[in-house]
Amino acid sequence: MTADVAQYLIENEPFYQAQEDEIDLYQAAYQARMPVMIKGPTGCGKSRFVEHMAWKLKRPLITVACNEDMTASDLVGRYLLDADGTRWLDGPLTIAARIGAICYLDEVVEARQDTTVVIHPLTDHRRTLPLDKKGEVISAHPDFQLVISYNPGYQSLMKDLKQSTKQRFAALDFDYAPEKIECEIICKETGTDAETASKLVKIGHTARNLKGHGLDEGISTRLLVYGAELIKQGIKPRAACRMALVRPITDDADIRATLDHAIDTLFA
Amino acid sequence: MTADVAQYLIENEPFYQAQEDEIDLYQAAYQARMPVMIKGPTGCGKSRFVEHMAWKLKRPLITVACNEDMTASDLVGRYLLDADGTRWLDGPLTIAARIGAICYLDEVVEARQDTTVVIHPLTDHRRTLPLDKKGEVISAHPDFQLVISYNPGYQSLMKDLKQSTKQRFAALDFDYAPEKIECEIICKETGTDAETASKLVKIGHTARNLKGHGLDEGISTRLLVYGAELIKQGIKPRAACRMALVRPITDDADIRATLDHAIDTLFA
Amino acid sequence: MTADVAQYLIENEPFYQAQEDEIDLYQAAYQARMPVMIKGPTGCGKSRFVEHMAWKLKRPLITVACNEDMTASDLVGRYLLDADGTRWLDGPLTIAARIGAICYLDEVVEARQDTTVVIHPLTDHRRTLPLDKKGEVISAHPDFQLVISYNPGYQSLMKDLKQSTKQRFAALDFDYAPEKIECEIICKETGTDAETASKLVKIGHTARNLKGHGLDEGISTRLLVYGAELIKQGIKPRAACRMALVRPITDDADIRATLDHAIDTLFA
Amino acid sequence: MTADVAQYLIENEPFYQAQEDEIDLYQAAYQARMPVMIKGPTGCGKSRFVEHMAWKLKRPLITVACNEDMTASDLVGRYLLDADGTRWLDGPLTIAARIGAICYLDEVVEARQDTTVVIHPLTDHRRTLPLDKKGEVISAHPDFQLVISYNPGYQSLMKDLKQSTKQRFAALDFDYAPEKIECEIICKETGTDAETASKLVKIGHTARNLKGHGLDEGISTRLLVYGAELIKQGIKPRAACRMALVRPITDDADIRATLDHAIDTLFA
Amino acid sequence: MTADVAQYLIENEPFYQAQEDEIDLYQAAYQARMPVMIKGPTGCGKSRFVEHMAWKLKRPLITVACNEDMTASDLVGRYLLDADGTRWLDGPLTIAARIGAICYLDEVVEARQDTTVVIHPLTDHRRTLPLDKKGEVISAHPDFQLVISYNPGYQSLMKDLKQSTKQRFAALDFDYAPEKIECEIICKETGTDAETASKLVKIGHTARNLKGHGLDEGISTRLLVYGAELIKQGIKPRAACRMALVRPITDDADIRATLDHAIDTLFA
Amino acid sequence: MTADVAQYLIENEPFYQAQEDEIDLYQAAYQARMPVMIKGPTGCGKSRFVEHMAWKLKRPLITVACNEDMTASDLVGRYLLDADGTRWLDGPLTIAARIGAICYLDEVVEARQDTTVVIHPLTDHRRTLPLDKKGEVISAHPDFQLVISYNPGYQSLMKDLKQSTKQRFAALDFDYAPEKIECEIICKETGTDAETASKLVKIGHTARNLKGHGLDEGISTRLLVYGAELIKQGIKPRAACRMALVRPITDDADIRATLDHAIDTLFA
Repeated sequence: MTADVAQYLIENEPFYQAQEDEIDLYQAAYQARMPVMIKGPTGCGKSRFVEHMAWKLKRPLITVACNEDMTASDLVGRYLLDADGTRWLDGPLTIAARIGAICYLDEVVEARQDTTVVIHPLTDHRRTLPLDKKGEVISAHPDFQLVISYNPGYQSLMKDLKQSTKQRFAALDFDYAPEKIECEIICKETGTDAETASKLVKIGHTARNLKGHGLDEGISTRLLVYGAELIKQGIKPRAACRMALVRPITDDADIRATLDHAIDTLFA
Repeated sequence: MTADVAQYLIENEPFYQAQEDEIDLYQAAYQARMPVMIKGPTGCGKSRFVEHMAWKLKRPLITVACNEDMTASDLVGRYLLDADGTRWLDGPLTIAARIGAICYLDEVVEARQDTTVVIHPLTDHRRTLPLDKKGEVISAHPDFQLVISYNPGYQSLMKDLKQSTKQRFAALDFDYAPEKIECEIICKETGTDAETASKLVKIGHTARNLKGHGLDEGISTRLLVYGAELIKQGIKPRAACRMALVRPITDDADIRATLDHAIDTLFA
Repeated sequence: MTADVAQYLIENEPFYQAQEDEIDLYQAAYQARMPVMIKGPTGCGKSRFVEHMAWKLKRPLITVACNEDMTASDLVGRYLLDADGTRWLDGPLTIAARIGAICYLDEVVEARQDTTVVIHPLTDHRRTLPLDKKGEVISAHPDFQLVISYNPGYQSLMKDLKQSTKQRFAALDFDYAPEKIECEIICKETGTDAETASKLVKIGHTARNLKGHGLDEGISTRLLVYGAELIKQGIKPRAACRMALVRPITDDADIRATLDHAIDTLFA
Repeated sequence: MTADVAQYLIENEPFYQAQEDEIDLYQAAYQARMPVMIKGPTGCGKSRFVEHMAWKLKRPLITVACNEDMTASDLVGRYLLDADGTRWLDGPLTIAARIGAICYLDEVVEARQDTTVVIHPLTDHRRTLPLDKKGEVISAHPDFQLVISYNPGYQSLMKDLKQSTKQRFAALDFDYAPEKIECEIICKETGTDAETASKLVKIGHTARNLKGHGLDEGISTRLLVYGAELIKQGIKPRAACRMALVRPITDDADIRATLDHAIDTLFA
Repeated sequence: MTADVAQYLIENEPFYQAQEDEIDLYQAAYQARMPVMIKGPTGCGKSRFVEHMAWKLKRPLITVACNEDMTASDLVGRYLLDADGTRWLDGPLTIAARIGAICYLDEVVEARQDTTVVIHPLTDHRRTLPLDKKGEVISAHPDFQLVISYNPGYQSLMKDLKQSTKQRFAALDFDYAPEKIECEIICKETGTDAETASKLVKIGHTARNLKGHGLDEGISTRLLVYGAELIKQGIKPRAACRMALVRPITDDADIRATLDHAIDTLFA
Repeated sequence: MTADVAQYLIENEPFYQAQEDEIDLYQAAYQARMPVMIKGPTGCGKSRFVEHMAWKLKRPLITVACNEDMTASDLVGRYLLDADGTRWLDGPLTIAARIGAICYLDEVVEARQDTTVVIHPLTDHRRTLPLDKKGEVISAHPDFQLVISYNPGYQSLMKDLKQSTKQRFAALDFDYAPEKIECEIICKETGTDAETASKLVKIGHTARNLKGHGLDEGISTRLLVYGAELIKQGIKPRAACRMALVRPITDDADIRATLDHAIDTLFA
């Protein structure tokens, strides 16, 4: 298969608001083609950051949402039966290694071990990918880089990366944007006014403070944007916030009461 | 495969009795093409509501009943062996994304993780669906929307949506219709008289009060409609209620006695 | 595949002795095409009843013995590889929905969840069966009805129908026939004399009283018929009863002694 | 596939020494085509008895050694890919039902549930076998009979036949042959002298008395025959008994000492 | 497939030092074509003994290393898709039965139950192997014999042979060779001097005495041979012994210290 | 498939700094074609050592990263469907055995048992590899050698090599390089100055002392090299060390504080 590089290039600059020196750090790692692990909670902008960097570096980006049913073949490729017999079909990791893309394995810890082990020879001095089932060893394109994401809040004894995998990556910590930047993101993405955005962010902070005290995760920036969008569509703020910020994340009556109260106070 | 859009359009208005502002809220979400999660107990009308909205919005509707044996390929598609080699067959989610349908994943929490993770890129700013096995990334049709249902009463530690999935949806809470509306539904659907309908609803409420005290779920509106239908077919109310309302939901002798007593009292 | 309707029609009236109003109740449910759940212990005549009703209603009957290895594809259908490529083969549920048969899923709780979920759209107002793998949605024939059986004595926390499945059925309770009727059944089926039949039924009752006190299930009517048949073949009653009634159901020495004693007393 | 009946016929009378009235009981059951369950410990002659009966009744015999990895398809049949597309291949149960053989499922409890459930319609008044994957329902040949074996000593909570399966069979209890008969079997099978056979049987009885006191099973008649054969080959009785009777069944030093002592005493 | 008998014949006499009367016992068993079970610890020469006997008896030998992922098909055979449709490929057990080889199933207890059950009809008076998937019953060649190995030290409640399998074999106990013979083996295999061999055997005995006191298994004869080979290659005895005898079998610091101390004392 | 030997040859000398006599020991083992097990923690240079030895011995090297989803077929080979029917494709182990390569199974303990058992006949006097599915027994090329790696820190009761596997290998213990050598490695690989390298190694030692006190593994030499590379790219040492040494290996706040403090002290 001749992979179509163009479809993996990001044409328009994805909106990304830098929080600290993460852009410089990532660029340095990319210059050394060092594998990078992005750590942080759900919906804080990890995927958006990787897209932004791929756009900035003008490299194609191939994203794979990992899951526990994914096999090494889903990454590397497989034989398909064709009119002329079997035909090899490169998987997304192999395509990325061939065309020199940034390969982004989202939530890699969800994948089975064979997925995580298959990346080992691509992440050390070898930079090779053995296609065992094809009897071929490919050398990664000089521009190829591997990036994985990882949500530390999720890990358990049963599901964690092996040390022999972790020790192949430099790592960047991510978190929700600071208040001022998060307001700007909401305004920019939805066209809502600064006051509404500020109130939404305040509700987000209320929820994030409840993390570990009844909530597994706080309210992500994405849900705040949803709230602003519903308000823009003409829904009353209180109803919009309940639908976008509270109902999706919890069924606990007490937590819901706490959050609904915060909403009613802010949008009195 | 050229999907036949017509077969997914709902020709006749599905009967739906609004309870609150759920129609407005859903419409606002659809205008923003925001993914929606419908929460509520068994048989309270979640699927009917989605059908009604698809009819109202004149969008094709593709419903998938999720289950624990369903794989990502069941949603996305797979290769089939053909006379001319392998042929790709779009799955229901892919068809929906291509033709701009509303895709309704019923009881999504039953599915394996790869099913729930596969919807991620369709539910954020990307609105794409990577067909990894085909080496193609498709962009969702502008009219495409994803809706999932979720029964909070069922969830356990073992089976729940991941936070990274939950935080991609705005959510609407559903419950059984209020007494007056539920009576109207029964009359409208079966042609029974208001008095019979009212008695059936009273039995339903008796059962719903037992939820958590020996019953896993109350009696759904659907079973009340069954009771009315059996009565309409000439079965004595007491026998009809036992067959339609009590025998299906419990084998516990005490609960059965309580419910049978309520039936005998109402249909004395 | 053009299903051969004739092979599913029951030509001769299956012997069935009504116990209460179950025939009327079933007929009313069938008139409304309401899904029906038949509950009761092993060998009390559930399958025979469904066959009798199919014969009485002149509808083809398609029976599927469910088991824990059965997949949704076993019910719905699958692609087969043919000389001209792949060919779709309807499963028994699909055939039943197409030709308007009564589809009887015996011991449905044994099946995996995907089997039980696949029947959902056939058991509500939609009466449709989506063949996801074929990209086709079929509407059930107006005469189609779904019937399932369920043995409450077997259910455990691990294996039970989901409430969202239970609440799609009206239910009929079955039990072993009353003494007089059970004697008639044995005489009618084997040509034995009334006295022998009566003694066999008495042994059956002894065993059924031991249910829960060392026996998982009582002796079914079927085993009583076996006993009568062996006697008819010239085997001495005591040996016939041991072989047909006791040895199959238990290896517990005490229970065997109790039952053997009852046999020796009756056939002294 | 046209099954070759001849290969399933037993040409020469298999040696079988009746212990009680089991031959009459089996014949009566066969006349009524009643399914039969043979119960008893390992190596007591269950399979030999079934072979003998098949020879006596002049019916072909198809034996299947069940195991936990066997699927319903292994019994019923499956599609095979051929030069002209797919071709159906009958499984052993289907062949038996078609040609009127006795089908003997050895240690049926080892099989998965789908194997045991698939025999249900063959074991009641229907005497049919639905080939769901082929869309065909076959009626059993009038001479067809189903026989299963079952070792009560093995059953546990995890692995037992379902009551709905047990209650489809008449049952015969088997045990090791009485001393005199067992001696005759050994002499007849190996040509050894009566004294040696008698000593071997005595060792067998010593071991059988240890069952439940350190031994899971006693020494089977088959192992006694092995001992006699080794002696016939010129091996000293003490060494032959150790190799054939003791070493295979236990690694426990105490039990070995007890049995070795019995051997040394008898073959002093 | 026409199996090439020659490739299974052992051309050169495999070195084997008899310990007791095991050669006579095995020959007697082979004359009666009796199935044999070889019991003993890792690396004590079980496989070598079977090879030696196959060479002595001039029979082809087919060895299968069993493992928990091996299926019955891996032993019996399977259909392969060919240019002309499906083609049956005999498995190693089937080949052995056809050509009259000794079939040696190494560590049979590791295999799944279907593997062990599949050998039953080959190990009693029938000496047949039903190829269920092919609809063929093959009779074993008169020279065919089945041999299995079994390490009693490994067995647990979870993994043991079923009694109905054990009682089909005569059994031979194996253990490490006595000191003098083990020295001869080492000298013969490596050409080392008797003194070095004697010291190596002493270290082996030290380790074997620690079995059950911190070591799962002692040092096998094979590892002693490795030590002698490394010394022959010019490595200092102390380093050779650490590399060949200690490092492979344990990571426990205390056990290592004990063994290293023994090495340093002997090779002072 | 004709394997292309050239692609497995290592052209340029891989940088390897000997720590003790490991090169001599390995060479002696290779001269005897003795299987070797390399033991040691993550990232201490095991794979690099094997590459170096393959280069030094001028042998092709075939590396396989083992994982728990790998089957024996992944190592040995499998049939593929081709235009002309099925075609056998050698797996990496088979290729290595044919061409006389060193086959390196990295982290072999991760593999399923069938993978580890399949190597047995290649690791004793037989030096053969039976391709059961192909009905072929291949004899290893005289230059073939098997090497496996093993991280003792990972093993648990659930996952360990069987003794019958361990006792087929001579073993070499590896650990992180001594301070002076590790500095040289960092300077050589990144071109950084000795002072920076020395500080990085000190941080590594701080972390390695925390192993077992909150850290599963220390910081590997690879991560120290990453730190030096980021510094070379212009990143401030403190930020580089946090990104390369601390963030990848732990999310524990206390451990991070300890390591960050060590970094700030050294790069004050």
